[in-house]
Amino acid sequence: MSKTLTNRKDDYAQWYNDIILKGGLADYSAVKGCMVIKPHGYALWENMRDNLDKRFKETGHQNAYFPLFIPKSFLSKEAAHVEGFAKECAVVTHYRLKNDPNGGGVIVDPEAKLEEELIVRPTSETIIWNTYKDWIKSYRDLPLLINQWANVVRWEMRTRLFLRTTEFLWQEGHTAHATREEAIEEAEKMLEVYASFAEEYMAIPVIRGVKSANERFAGAEDTYCIEALMQDGKALQAGTSHFLGQNFAKAFDVKFQDKDNNHDYVWATSWGVSTRLVGALVMVHSDDEGLVLPPKLAPLQVVIIPIFNKDPEATAKIERTAQDIINNLKQQGIRVKYDNDDNTRAGFKFAEYELKGVPVRITLGARDLENNIVEVARRDTKEKKAYPLDGIAASIPGLLDDIQSNMYNTALKFRTENTIEVNSWDEFVKILDEKPGFVSAHWDGTPETEEKIKELTKATIRCIPLNNKMEEGKCIHSGKPSTQRVLFARAY
Amino acid sequence: MSKTLTNRKDDYAQWYNDIILKGGLADYSAVKGCMVIKPHGYALWENMRDNLDKRFKETGHQNAYFPLFIPKSFLSKEAAHVEGFAKECAVVTHYRLKNDPNGGGVIVDPEAKLEEELIVRPTSETIIWNTYKDWIKSYRDLPLLINQWANVVRWEMRTRLFLRTTEFLWQEGHTAHATREEAIEEAEKMLEVYASFAEEYMAIPVIRGVKSANERFAGAEDTYCIEALMQDGKALQAGTSHFLGQNFAKAFDVKFQDKDNNHDYVWATSWGVSTRLVGALVMVHSDDEGLVLPPKLAPLQVVIIPIFNKDPEATAKIERTAQDIINNLKQQGIRVKYDNDDNTRAGFKFAEYELKGVPVRITLGARDLENNIVEVARRDTKEKKAYPLDGIAASIPGLLDDIQSNMYNTALKFRTENTIEVNSWDEFVKILDEKPGFVSAHWDGTPETEEKIKELTKATIRCIPLNNKMEEGKCIHSGKPSTQRVLFARAY
Repeated sequence: MSKTLTNRKDDYAQWYNDIILKGGLADYSAVKGCMVIKPHGYALWENMRDNLDKRFKETGHQNAYFPLFIPKSFLSKEAAHVEGFAKECAVVTHYRLKNDPNGGGVIVDPEAKLEEELIVRPTSETIIWNTYKDWIKSYRDLPLLINQWANVVRWEMRTRLFLRTTEFLWQEGHTAHATREEAIEEAEKMLEVYASFAEEYMAIPVIRGVKSANERFAGAEDTYCIEALMQDGKALQAGTSHFLGQNFAKAFDVKFQDKDNNHDYVWATSWGVSTRLVGALVMVHSDDEGLVLPPKLAPLQVVIIPIFNKDPEATAKIERTAQDIINNLKQQGIRVKYDNDDNTRAGFKFAEYELKGVPVRITLGARDLENNIVEVARRDTKEKKAYPLDGIAASIPGLLDDIQSNMYNTALKFRTENTIEVNSWDEFVKILDEKPGFVSAHWDGTPETEEKIKELTKATIRCIPLNNKMEEGKCIHSGKPSTQRVLFARAY
Repeated sequence: MSKTLTNRKDDYAQWYNDIILKGGLADYSAVKGCMVIKPHGYALWENMRDNLDKRFKETGHQNAYFPLFIPKSFLSKEAAHVEGFAKECAVVTHYRLKNDPNGGGVIVDPEAKLEEELIVRPTSETIIWNTYKDWIKSYRDLPLLINQWANVVRWEMRTRLFLRTTEFLWQEGHTAHATREEAIEEAEKMLEVYASFAEEYMAIPVIRGVKSANERFAGAEDTYCIEALMQDGKALQAGTSHFLGQNFAKAFDVKFQDKDNNHDYVWATSWGVSTRLVGALVMVHSDDEGLVLPPKLAPLQVVIIPIFNKDPEATAKIERTAQDIINNLKQQGIRVKYDNDDNTRAGFKFAEYELKGVPVRITLGARDLENNIVEVARRDTKEKKAYPLDGIAASIPGLLDDIQSNMYNTALKFRTENTIEVNSWDEFVKILDEKPGFVSAHWDGTPETEEKIKELTKATIRCIPLNNKMEEGKCIHSGKPSTQRVLFARAY
């Protein structure tokens, strides 16, 4: 069958691409580095977006929309931001085409050159803070809690579907506060929103942590992150939340008047997650048969497949039973599809819905129905079980919950088994190659040592976990004293 | 009060801008022609999007996402498309910046020039049909019913908030079909989706029609449209649905194999509405006090404002009553806010929520509560009425329905009164200046006459209404014979 995927153990990267392409999540496009998000992939992103959006609104945020373009000069206003960020991006220099006088096509009209080039936003801190300058005058205007759902562009040389693409979809929160403490509290609160979303909704356990200086967002005083472990032992940064201090307020001169008529720069945060999460979802849960989707996120939670024989009475009974189950499931708010297309063999359908990751499959066969049973297969464990027909619909919500928590627990167990404490350089290097995962090790706290370790092993400090245990030790590389362990890994 | 708006009769254009800016819908940005959509404006767009999205899904469409960029050469593949469309657009020529060796800023890196320029999509037919080429092989792949929510850019010289901006948000449906008839049926079905959305949800009556050749979308065989009448008598095209024939399939070589193994080009439609609808909403319903929002679309449907006096017992009673009403309204799914901020005077709040367009205001005063009544004000008619406290929450849904239909009927009455049949050129010119609105007149059916009329009067043919009555007559301009009347107007 053409849908067969490469096995994970044979070629993990190829397996990943197979799932994305054959599972109908995304496709390559005619534009280098940009992907087409296909309906099944977009439905996953939509569900993530809607759930996150609800969490943002529950924590007091409102959505807004800022321009796609950023005047080039804005990028250099915050010094660290431009150094760390702004170089690889799409630059708009002209605003008109004209017919090619020498041929059938169109050419860029040299007369239509912009006075100042525009950058397609790689992130929106600069254009947003330039706007906040007009919106914030007084403490009464604070806190300002805004989120934007948008596309952004970063000109990537090496791209991978969902994980790193030139254009991607994301949300970016940008908040302004009267005090340092309140801004830090916001950055931490949004990290927790991301973490609980990942764990409760995507069934992905994450480490909550803070980045070392080397891995910090350009322009941030602190970058909080959630880090997840993929099945190949590589880490993936699944979301970040930045405490920006007063850096952008100073760069764009955003001051407020407090209750005592004093003026001060406002304090900022920004935070984001992107379509990269779809890549994480695939790499944490899926198997050699295809996608495995957590029920809360799955666009389709249950598929019902009839096995028809030639007896019209048995067929009628199957159809009636299917309709009863569907009505009942829909009343419970469960997303269900009945696939009675009789041009396709049941075996092909089974494989197709396995590939697409549908959590539960109910098979209705004539013989089973005579015996008042139906076959229920769960996608996560691939277990098949006969359920009594009577009350079948009522048992589905519990089954979906069970799948959701089993998927989380399986991923958590994998992460626990693949998080190893090491105490020497030799151990560190050996573990990275032989049993990749998170490696918990002492580090002397200097950027130089971190850089050196990265050069030698390609492993980076994923984070310093929040509420980390303090313990004395020696840096695995420099041997200098250290007060806590940090998490290293090779990462996407 | 700083919120005071210009009156419509004094300066309609200024009134419109005042509503947008002071009502918190949008703001100008640092990028010429691009706007910032502020939270209140974005909430309106979100509600429109969610309702439309539901209608699209109910009619079998799925969402997907295609690249922001289009290779320049794609634009010239469909001849009419490039002629009519593609010239005024943002052109990406470079993909990297670098530090300016002569100063503190950044410059475009001349080394990083793209081999082929990329166009920021003004619409996505070309990139999508280039993709459909890989997706469509057989009749089994048809119909392909895809929609995209996206930002697009058209380099406009004269812009107006929401009505015409360089960047705007929209959806664009792109479907592929096996037959001409099915594609036409789809284009007409989606026009009806737009029309019923506008009428049922936005309370905006629309004329369903088809465009004359001059006003057709570049690359379409037929453009269907819905046209609405604004309070100043100008028309606004609120949505379009195009039957594209086989034009794009031929340009991008998209063929399918039918059941009999014959190969043919597929048939296409595309259809879209944009953030322009927010502008229409404002101009159809609002008044000199601010926005008037139809309840179905209003982010906030009811606001409850307490009038406190110094008696703590009365205050406690007001608070209890408010909570009872809120709980009851929320249980009914009504979007309600309780504004008990005691730093702001009630009169200021009244004006603020009137400006924002909240359909219903409930005022809770101590004396009224003693008499077991509450004051209810409706935004559309500005009528205030005492309601019995007992059962107040239960009477709100009916009131909201009444406001919704009253707003529709008021707009319909206005349109009817401002749609005039004329039978001579003198009448036509006089009506356009003295009582602007839709002018129903005979036209000889030629692009030349239409162009001439536009030159002389700035009025265009808004549409040939669907199911138009056939009647013999003479073209108001050329005097040549005509078989039906068409609708003229000056338009946004």
